[in-house]
Order: sequence, then C-alpha cells, then structure tokens
Amino acid sequence: MSPNTKNLNTHLPLGDRKEAPFYGHDILSVRQFSREDLSYTFGVAHEMREVVRRLGSIDLLKGKILANLFYEPSTRTSSSFAAAMERLGGSVIAINEVRYSSVAKGESLPDTVRTLETYADVVVLRHPEVGSAALAAKHARKPIINAGDGAGEHPTQALLDLFTIYEEMGRIDGLTITLLGDLKYGRTVHSLARLLTRYDVRLHLVAPPELPMPEEVCDALREANLPFTVSSQLTDVLGDTDVLYVTRVQKERFEDAAVYEQVRGAYVITPAVLEGAREKMIVMHPFPRVGEISMEVDDDPRAAYFRQMEYGLYVRMALLAMVLGRA
Amino acid sequence: MSPNTKNLNTHLPLGDRKEAPFYGHDILSVRQFSREDLSYTFGVAHEMREVVRRLGSIDLLKGKILANLFYEPSTRTSSSFAAAMERLGGSVIAINEVRYSSVAKGESLPDTVRTLETYADVVVLRHPEVGSAALAAKHARKPIINAGDGAGEHPTQALLDLFTIYEEMGRIDGLTITLLGDLKYGRTVHSLARLLTRYDVRLHLVAPPELPMPEEVCDALREANLPFTVSSQLTDVLGDTDVLYVTRVQKERFEDAAVYEQVRGAYVITPAVLEGAREKMIVMHPFPRVGEISMEVDDDPRAAYFRQMEYGLYVRMALLAMVLGRA
Amino acid sequence: MSPNTKNLNTHLPLGDRKEAPFYGHDILSVRQFSREDLSYTFGVAHEMREVVRRLGSIDLLKGKILANLFYEPSTRTSSSFAAAMERLGGSVIAINEVRYSSVAKGESLPDTVRTLETYADVVVLRHPEVGSAALAAKHARKPIINAGDGAGEHPTQALLDLFTIYEEMGRIDGLTITLLGDLKYGRTVHSLARLLTRYDVRLHLVAPPELPMPEEVCDALREANLPFTVSSQLTDVLGDTDVLYVTRVQKERFEDAAVYEQVRGAYVITPAVLEGAREKMIVMHPFPRVGEISMEVDDDPRAAYFRQMEYGLYVRMALLAMVLGRA
Repeated sequence: MSPNTKNLNTHLPLGDRKEAPFYGHDILSVRQFSREDLSYTFGVAHEMREVVRRLGSIDLLKGKILANLFYEPSTRTSSSFAAAMERLGGSVIAINEVRYSSVAKGESLPDTVRTLETYADVVVLRHPEVGSAALAAKHARKPIINAGDGAGEHPTQALLDLFTIYEEMGRIDGLTITLLGDLKYGRTVHSLARLLTRYDVRLHLVAPPELPMPEEVCDALREANLPFTVSSQLTDVLGDTDVLYVTRVQKERFEDAAVYEQVRGAYVITPAVLEGAREKMIVMHPFPRVGEISMEVDDDPRAAYFRQMEYGLYVRMALLAMVLGRA
Repeated sequence: MSPNTKNLNTHLPLGDRKEAPFYGHDILSVRQFSREDLSYTFGVAHEMREVVRRLGSIDLLKGKILANLFYEPSTRTSSSFAAAMERLGGSVIAINEVRYSSVAKGESLPDTVRTLETYADVVVLRHPEVGSAALAAKHARKPIINAGDGAGEHPTQALLDLFTIYEEMGRIDGLTITLLGDLKYGRTVHSLARLLTRYDVRLHLVAPPELPMPEEVCDALREANLPFTVSSQLTDVLGDTDVLYVTRVQKERFEDAAVYEQVRGAYVITPAVLEGAREKMIVMHPFPRVGEISMEVDDDPRAAYFRQMEYGLYVRMALLAMVLGRA
Repeated sequence: MSPNTKNLNTHLPLGDRKEAPFYGHDILSVRQFSREDLSYTFGVAHEMREVVRRLGSIDLLKGKILANLFYEPSTRTSSSFAAAMERLGGSVIAINEVRYSSVAKGESLPDTVRTLETYADVVVLRHPEVGSAALAAKHARKPIINAGDGAGEHPTQALLDLFTIYEEMGRIDGLTITLLGDLKYGRTVHSLARLLTRYDVRLHLVAPPELPMPEEVCDALREANLPFTVSSQLTDVLGDTDVLYVTRVQKERFEDAAVYEQVRGAYVITPAVLEGAREKMIVMHPFPRVGEISMEVDDDPRAAYFRQMEYGLYVRMALLAMVLGRA
C-alpha cells in the first residue's frame, strides 16, 4: 500500500482505531495492491456479500459521510458507491453536477476537495483528467478513492473484476482468461491485466489489429512471466478459456469514426458463439454494453455480467470500511 | 394483483417474510387493483398517516435502498417517494439526470434497471415512453413502481387521489365527483375515473368541447354502470358535487397554441365560484397549478390540494412497505 | 428573533417539545439575531463541534427530513447543510435542478414550498431573488432557512464567519477586523459588518475606490458607534489587524469587464504579505477563491479559511437542531 496514510483520529471514538491495515489510506491505483492486499480486500468483500445476503445492511459506518464527487457523470459507479455506503449504515452527499456549480467557477480541485472533506469522512472522486485523484489525495486529509481519472485508472473497477473471477471460479491461479475487443483504449482491461500479473494465470488477448493491447501492458505481462497469446479471432482461443472478458468498443475513443464502424460488430457474443465455449466458463463485461453481448445470452448461467455489478457493490463496501478503519 | 411476483428472500432476514399480499409485486397500473386491494392499501396508508403524525418516522425499512430512476424530471414525485422511503427508515439513490449520464449512452432500459437492482431493493421509474414500466418489470427481479410512463399510467397519483377522497370524506361510495378541465389529455383523471368504477359513485365530466373525456374511458364507465353527466359549464353541476377535481390545462399537450390560449382561463376556481358549492365539498388538484385555482382559495377549508400531497406521502409509504413485505 | 414561529407539534412525539427558544422559527436574516441570540447559537454550535470531534454524528434529528431547495447551484452551501443534517442523524431530499424540473413549470415559489413541506420537516432555500426567503416563510408552516436570496442575505454565512472569529480568537469583543477586497458587491461582508455592530470591535475597510462599502452599511456602523477606518491599501492597517477577512472580486458583479480586470489582482495575500501581519492573526475567506490568496499560504497556521468551512458545518447543525426544537 501507498505510504499516504492519513490521521483520522478526530472522527473516531476513542479506542476505536483498530489495527486495520488500510485505515486512512487512499485508493488511487491498482499498483498499490500486492497479492496479499488483494487477498485481504477480497476476504472483506466476501464478508460484505454475506452481510448483504443475510441482513441487507449493517451499521458499520453509521454516522459516517461519503462525498461522491463526480466531475463527469457515471451513474453506475456513483450509484454503486452510494449503495455501498448506505448498506454500511452511512450517508452520502452526491455532487454530480460539478460543471454547472459554483464549485466549478474557477476553483481548483484541491480547494474543492479540502472543502468537501470538512463535511465528509471519505471522498470518492471521478474526474476527466489523468492524475487528478493523486492530486486530490496529496492535499486531502481524509481518504480519497479514485473512481476513474480519465485515461488514467479506475481501480475499483479492476478490483471488482478480479473479485468476480475469484468468487465465480473459486480461485484465480490456474485460470485462462481471454480479454476481448478494444484492448487499446479499454482502461478496464489494462488495469485488470496488471492485477493479474500477481497471479499464476494465462491470458489470450483478442483484438482487431487497429486496437491491440498497448506494448507497455504487454511488457508488464512479460516481466511477470505471465504467458499470453495475441490474436484477432475469438474462435482461436474460446475453447481454451475459463473467463471471457468482453469490452465495449467506445465510439468516443476513436479519432476516426469510419474505423469505429468497421470494428464495432466484429466481436459480438451470441448463444451460437457460446456453443464453442466451456460449460463452466463465465462471460464478463464492464458495462454499459451496446450490442457486444446479445440479450439472448442473459439467461445463460455463464453470463456473469450482472453478478459482476453486484460484486462491485461488495468490493466498494469493503474498501469504504477498510479506509475508515472498520475492516 | 398481477402474478408478476418476485422472490426477494435474499434480502430479508430469516423469518421476516410475512404473509404480505403485495410482497414482491410490481406496481404498474391502477388496473391491477381490485376494490379489496384498494381497501388494503388505504388501510396501510392510514396507518402510515398515524405514524407520521405521532412519530415522524419509523424504522420499518431500515437498511433498504430505493433507486429513484427518473428519465424525465418530476421534482414533486421523486421528492415524495424519497421522503416516503426516508420516513420508513430506508435510504434513497437518486438518479435524476439520466439523459446526461453514461447510463444513457445507448444502454437499454432493461440493462439500466438490472444494473440498479444489483444495488437497490426497489426501483421507482419515471420514463417518457408508454409501456416502459412494464418492460422494466419484465426484466427486473426486484419490485418496480411506475411513477409515470409518458401518456401511459401514473398509478400512485391515482391511488393518492382516491385515498384523499377516502380520508377527507370518510367514504367513497355514495359520493358525486366532478372532474374539471382538460379531460382529454389529463392522464390523472383517466386513471382516477377507472379506479372509481370499483365504487358506487356518480361523476360529472366538465370540459371544454375541444378537450372531452376520451370515449375509451367513457366506455369503461358505462361498462361499470357508473352514472355520469357531460357538460362544459361547471355551474351546471357545482351544487351537486362532493369532490371537485380540477386539472391543469397543460400547454405541452396542445398541438395548436391558439387553442390552448382560448381554453386555459375557462375554468378558474375563485372564492366567488366556491360560493355556489357545498359546505363540505373538497377541491383537489394534481399540481402544479398555473392559475386554475386562485391562491385566495388556499385558506378555504375546502381546499384539499396541499393535504392531497401529504396523502401522497402516506400512499407511497404504504406501497413501499407492501412490495418489500413489511405491510 | 422574528415572531414568525410555527407550530410543529404534529411531527414531534408527545412531551418532546422543549423550551427551545428558536423552535419553529425561520432563519431569514442576520437582523433577527440579538447579541443574546448569537451567544445562544454559538453555544450550541460549539457543542456540535465537540459532538463531531468525539462521535462524528448523533441521532438528535433521527427521522427528520431536510428539503434542500436550490434554485441556483451552490455545491458548498448545499453540501454543508446536507452534511449538517446527516451528522444529526436526519435525512436530506436534494432539489438541485429546479430550473429544469416540472416544479419550475410556471409554479409559484409558495406552491413549491408548500409542496415540499408536506414531505419535509425543514426547508433550506437558495433563490436568486431578493425577498424570496421571506416570501416562502410567509406561506410555509415548517421552518425556512435562507441559504442566500440573490443580492439579499445569506445569514448562515455571516453566522459561520462570526462563529469562526469566536472559536479561533476565543472572543469577539476587543478585536480589530479588516474587511478586504470587493466591499461594494460582497454580500458576505455586508452581513458580517452588520452582525459585528452587536460587539465592541474596530473595523478597517480596505477596498479599491471603485468598490467601497455601501453608505447604508457605513451608516449602520456609525449608528452603533463602531469605530472604522477606510483605505485602499492593506499595508496601512495590516499590522493593526486581528482578523483579515478577504473577499473574492466576482466577475459577475461587474457591469464593466475592464474594471474587473483592473482590480482583481490588487489585493492578493501571499506569504510575503503576511510577513507584515501579527503572529496570532487569522485569515478568512468565504470561498471559492480565485487567486486572492496564494496556495502557499495554506500551510500557515494563520490560514483559517478551511477551518472556517468546518465551523459552517457546526453552525448549520446548531440552526437545524434549534428550529426543530432539539436545542
């Protein structure tokens, strides 16, 4: 973990400061997480899953306040964090319209964050600029959780992806994982690939020639001695896949609209495609989908993408409890 | 009730699943509600009224989360549902800006609803398209409450209208109810008229010739043997009225602005108009009003339209508790 | 206090109505507050500070609902009120987009407020028009708190400014306070100056010649026998200052953009400027800042502007508890 630990004593009752290893930490990047950290996080997230299944909610963070600071809209992520805080008994201040608000009137991000932390106990930040979460964390005294900083990182997405694999397959070591679609611009697959270097897995990278996995990520895989193949045809590797991670080909990532139109339909998952897949494989997707997976696949037990969002709730509950010293 | 019952066991503590007749149901249309269902609902709503009067709030839905999903703005309805959930001890995730959000980036309504139900226990949906609530309910595993689907239905408005009559007059059978104003485009009066066919009442339909009650609704009244008159002058029937339901002539319902200007002022309620009314009559309005009822009427004890909103709170508290198995 | 007291009995449990002097009152203007009222308010706010430091939150307003009704965006103020309500155990309904909502479709402010008070226990109102808070209070049965009505008042800002001085300096009487920057259009310095007439203080008014303190405010100072100087150079008075209150020169207050450009940089606080200041002086600012105080000043212990926001939380907690009869 980063050494960027904050002293939150003022908001904790005396004697309540446990030996919580993430207490007061920022969550900025997947690079912070060692294999041991991941194991700890997933253990807490699994407990959160049990809590929600059995009780719905608990009062672990009763009286705590989350500031959900979103400089660009992301209903899925903001709702997931809000629900995570509320299922832990805490409260949420939603700041969703920063562009229109007086906070935006030329105010610097550090000033906005230092303002909000006078009201809240933890700040979740979504911002379009790379490095904004680290900048906020540098000035903040309360924990900052990066909920996406442009082309930078979205660490809680990567953590929930990995937790999904862990919960669905019962393990991560030994699996073969296929990353499919836009591997060039897909922030989620870059972070997931980096996290997977902590484990003993094999990867298949399947992308159109225009959208390959960046060399920088491939270098990280090689450095970790993680075996991987590169191809442009899913059929080459589908039968040898335990986890099929499908990504959206996002129009806004393309400079040339014509290229987008060419590749968008190239990797659509249908019931027919899945006939060539293993019976215990799972299909994942970071959502939203816009045609990459046919709705007819939704009833297939291998379709794990809605469960994946539910795992996201548990991971975010775990992280909130951890940085606030309650897990 | 619709047979569209959902299994919500996972979010309820063991032994907590009562014999609640609406448990796991969607609330999509007033057509679902038999006279017996209405009686049950109003009994619960009346209890909620007592709870709020005596305690302000209770913890009946503590730990439960409502997703307030509004594809078009409706501050009144979304605030009412939010307050209802909060007065029951539950939490709310507000999604008010769907048009601007990433959820809207081409994502289908079923995907959005299935996403939100991984975080929430119940979804309230406002959407501009007819049938959207039914579509959402078909894919959702958690209860969906229709908060208005375009020219379709807005069942909780109709239920609160009827509950207002019930609470204010002490009964529904035997009353004479006058529906006034835009009866052609007014969704609320259509739904209310349909609900009233469950009771032994008489109706007066008073509208400008351009804005008559649709034949389809009149047919439903005839089929139920509900006696009604049709006229264009309130003075014809005001003295024979127990409940005067005034509707707004909404500009956006008119294709021709000139017609709107002609009829907008035709049915304005003033203290002078009320001189011809019964002493125990009540005046209702779904709000917002834009001149249909003079503010001078507000202090008249017959002005029930602000109390009507308060009854809306109790009805929505009742429905939330009912579909979540707590009433 | 204003005699505009409301009867809130219906929402309080029997026997819970304390002898709370502000119970049921609106908070519309600093002019309501006698020196005794201020002392009472700051006593409660100080207790709230202790509560937050030691416990984070309490359940004093559990089950109560605040409607945060903002006709113009103000993230700072709305977040501060939301956090205040949540740290007291209450809930918040945020209505931030009134311009786009159906409530705004020609509905009058009294109708909107009377609607919201059927759901909520207290209404915080931000509105661009002078006098709107008083208009709302006239029609409302629940307490209204003015969170800024255009060029009118923003009383909770003035109260938090004064509370900051009180908490930081340990007293108000005997201090010398310098108001710096745009004294003509700065609503906050007008209200603060009026509040200071209740105390035995001295003022320095430092502004560019184009932006002097209005004569009306100066008259109020003279009437209260409050000694003050007027100048355009901070260096004239900095060494004789206990509290330096810096204001933003807001572009939107200027009719002529050229004048704005001339004066904006004239009064920037830097570490070099502070070399001429007392060691125990504090620097305040209502925020947002856009260059008036260099970020290098933030680490100076005299920089009180982030603490000032925190004091705002305590003052708003105090006011909410007071008007709801719990303090």
